[in-house]
Amino acid sequence: MSIDPVKWESGELAILDQRQLPQKEEWIVAEEWEQVAEAIRSMAVRGAPLIGIAAAYGLALAHFKGRDMVIAKAGLAATRPTAVNLFHALDRVFAAEDPLAEAHALLQEEADANDRIAANGASLLSENATVMTICNTGGLATVGVGTALGVIRKAHALGKLKEAVLLETRPRQQGMKLSAWELQRDGIPFRVIADGAAAWFMKTHRADMAIAGADRIARNGDTANKIGTYGLALLARAHDVRFVVAAPTSTVDPRIESGREIPIEEREPAELTHVGSEQIAPRDCPVWNPAFDVTPAALIDAIVTDAGIHSPPFDFGVLARSHS
Amino acid sequence: MSIDPVKWESGELAILDQRQLPQKEEWIVAEEWEQVAEAIRSMAVRGAPLIGIAAAYGLALAHFKGRDMVIAKAGLAATRPTAVNLFHALDRVFAAEDPLAEAHALLQEEADANDRIAANGASLLSENATVMTICNTGGLATVGVGTALGVIRKAHALGKLKEAVLLETRPRQQGMKLSAWELQRDGIPFRVIADGAAAWFMKTHRADMAIAGADRIARNGDTANKIGTYGLALLARAHDVRFVVAAPTSTVDPRIESGREIPIEEREPAELTHVGSEQIAPRDCPVWNPAFDVTPAALIDAIVTDAGIHSPPFDFGVLARSHS
Repeated sequence: MSIDPVKWESGELAILDQRQLPQKEEWIVAEEWEQVAEAIRSMAVRGAPLIGIAAAYGLALAHFKGRDMVIAKAGLAATRPTAVNLFHALDRVFAAEDPLAEAHALLQEEADANDRIAANGASLLSENATVMTICNTGGLATVGVGTALGVIRKAHALGKLKEAVLLETRPRQQGMKLSAWELQRDGIPFRVIADGAAAWFMKTHRADMAIAGADRIARNGDTANKIGTYGLALLARAHDVRFVVAAPTSTVDPRIESGREIPIEEREPAELTHVGSEQIAPRDCPVWNPAFDVTPAALIDAIVTDAGIHSPPFDFGVLARSHS
Repeated sequence: MSIDPVKWESGELAILDQRQLPQKEEWIVAEEWEQVAEAIRSMAVRGAPLIGIAAAYGLALAHFKGRDMVIAKAGLAATRPTAVNLFHALDRVFAAEDPLAEAHALLQEEADANDRIAANGASLLSENATVMTICNTGGLATVGVGTALGVIRKAHALGKLKEAVLLETRPRQQGMKLSAWELQRDGIPFRVIADGAAAWFMKTHRADMAIAGADRIARNGDTANKIGTYGLALLARAHDVRFVVAAPTSTVDPRIESGREIPIEEREPAELTHVGSEQIAPRDCPVWNPAFDVTPAALIDAIVTDAGIHSPPFDFGVLARSHS
C-alpha cells in the first residue's frame, strides 16, 4: 500500500508526523520552510531519502513564498548532519530553474530507484527466506516501496519470503513502530524482536539475510546507518548470515573516501530515558546516544542500489559522480 | 549502600517491588507463599540469586503458617524455569530441620559470596577501567553488593574504575532502570547506552571488560543469562574486549553438561510491545521474546565465582557438587 509521507498541496507541504505512529495518523501542514526544517530536526519526518525529499520541498516552498533561498538552504541543511541525501537534494533544488519541478522530479526518481533496489535485492534471495532488518526503511523512510523494506516487500510479492524479523531499534523504536505498522498493513509475515535478541535469533533460527538501509555510503563502501547496524553486521558475520545494504545511489557521498569522514549525530538523552511521555530512567541519568554508527565495508557482502548489485571491494567513485 | 530487597519481618516477607523502580519504592508484604510465588512470576522480584532467596523465604513462610510444604515447593518451583538458584534454594529449605534458619543462612551465604566475587572480579582490572555490563546484577538482583555489578562497585572502591557502561537491556530495561538507580545512589560514574549501541561503543571507546551475571552455568561453562548477553559476548570477542561472567557457585548446575540442556523462558509479548502503561507497537504486533540466551563457554574469558577465578576450559563438576 502506498503511503506518501510528504505531499505537496498547492503551496503547502503536508508531512505525516511519524512520531505519532502507529497510534495516530497526524499531519503537519508546513506553510514556510522553517516548519519543514523543524519537522526534520524533530524527526516528525525521518529516513535518509525522505529527509532529502522533504528538504527539497522545503526549499521549493521557500521559493514559492518568495523567501531568501540562501538562508532557507542553509537552515534546511543545518537540521541533521549524517544523511547525505539532505545535502544532495538541497544542491539540486537550489541550482534548478524551477525548484518545485525539481523537487517533484527528485521524488519521482527516488520512487523509481526504490523499485529497482527492491528487484535487485530480492534477486539475491531464494525460496522461504527469513530476512532480518533494523530501523524503518520502508515507504515511511523514503517514497514508494522503501529500500531495505522494499526488498522484503518484493521478496514477499515473489513468494520468496518466509518471515521478516524486525529489530525494535532503540532508542526511537522505528522497527517496532514504523516497520511493523507498514508490514501489518500489507499483510507481510513478520515478528519484532528486541535488539539484544538478534544474536540469539541467528543462533537458534535460520536467517538468510540481514539487510539495512543507509544514511551515507563512502566511496569505499563504509556505510553509516542507524545505531545498531554495525553490531548487526558483526553478528551476521559471526553466524554466516549474508549482510546487505540497500540504498539509492543518492545516498553515496562521492566526496569522502571512507566512513571515518562521516559525521555521526548525537541526539538528546530523553530519546533513551523517556518512552513517549513516560520517564523510564532515574532522573538525570547520564547516557550516550549516538543516532548512527558506521559499518565497515569489510562486513558488507553486497550493496544493492538502483544501479545494480555491488560486490566487494566497493568503489563508488564513478557511480556517485553521475548524480552529484 | 545496602538495599535488602527481601526482608523477613516476623512472619511476613517484605518484597521490594522492582517493577516500580526507579520512580517509586513500593513494598509487597507477603503473608502466604502464593504471594511470594506471584512476586517471582511477575518479576516484582528478579535476578537469579534473589529469586532463590525469595523462594527460600517463601517456603519458610509456608512452614511458618503450617501449609503443605510439598505443594508450596512445587508451586514456588513452577514460577520461572531458567535460574537454577531457585531449585537449589528450594531443595535446601525443604530438606532443612528449621526452614527459616536455612533461608536466613542462605541469604547470608549469598551476601558473603558476593563480597568474594567482587574482590575476585575486581582483581582482573587495572587502573582507569571502563566496564560494560548488561541487565541488573546488583544489590537488587541478589543481596549485598551484587555479582557483576558488585565487581564494578569493588573496582570503584579500589579506585580502578573510570566508568561503567550500562546496556539498557530491553525488553524490561533493568540496566537503565535498576543498575542506573543503584550506581547513581552510590555515586559511581556510569552512562547508559541502547543495547544496539554496544558494538559502536566498543569500536569508538576503549572498553576493558564486558561483564555479565548468570542464571545458570553448565558444567562446561556455557552460561544462560539475560537476552543480549550472547550478542554482547560476540561483540566483545570481535573487539578484543575481555568477556567475564560473575556469579555465585549456587548458579552452577552440576546436573547438566552443556547449555543445550538449559530451558529458556519465553515471556509475554507485552514486555516488548508496551513500555509502562504505554502501547508502542501496533495492535496485535507479533513478537519473539525470549528472556534469556546461552553464551557458549568458548566466548567466555573468565568465570568469577566466590570460589575463585576460573579460566577456560571450564569444568564445574567438582565445584558444583560441593553445594548440590
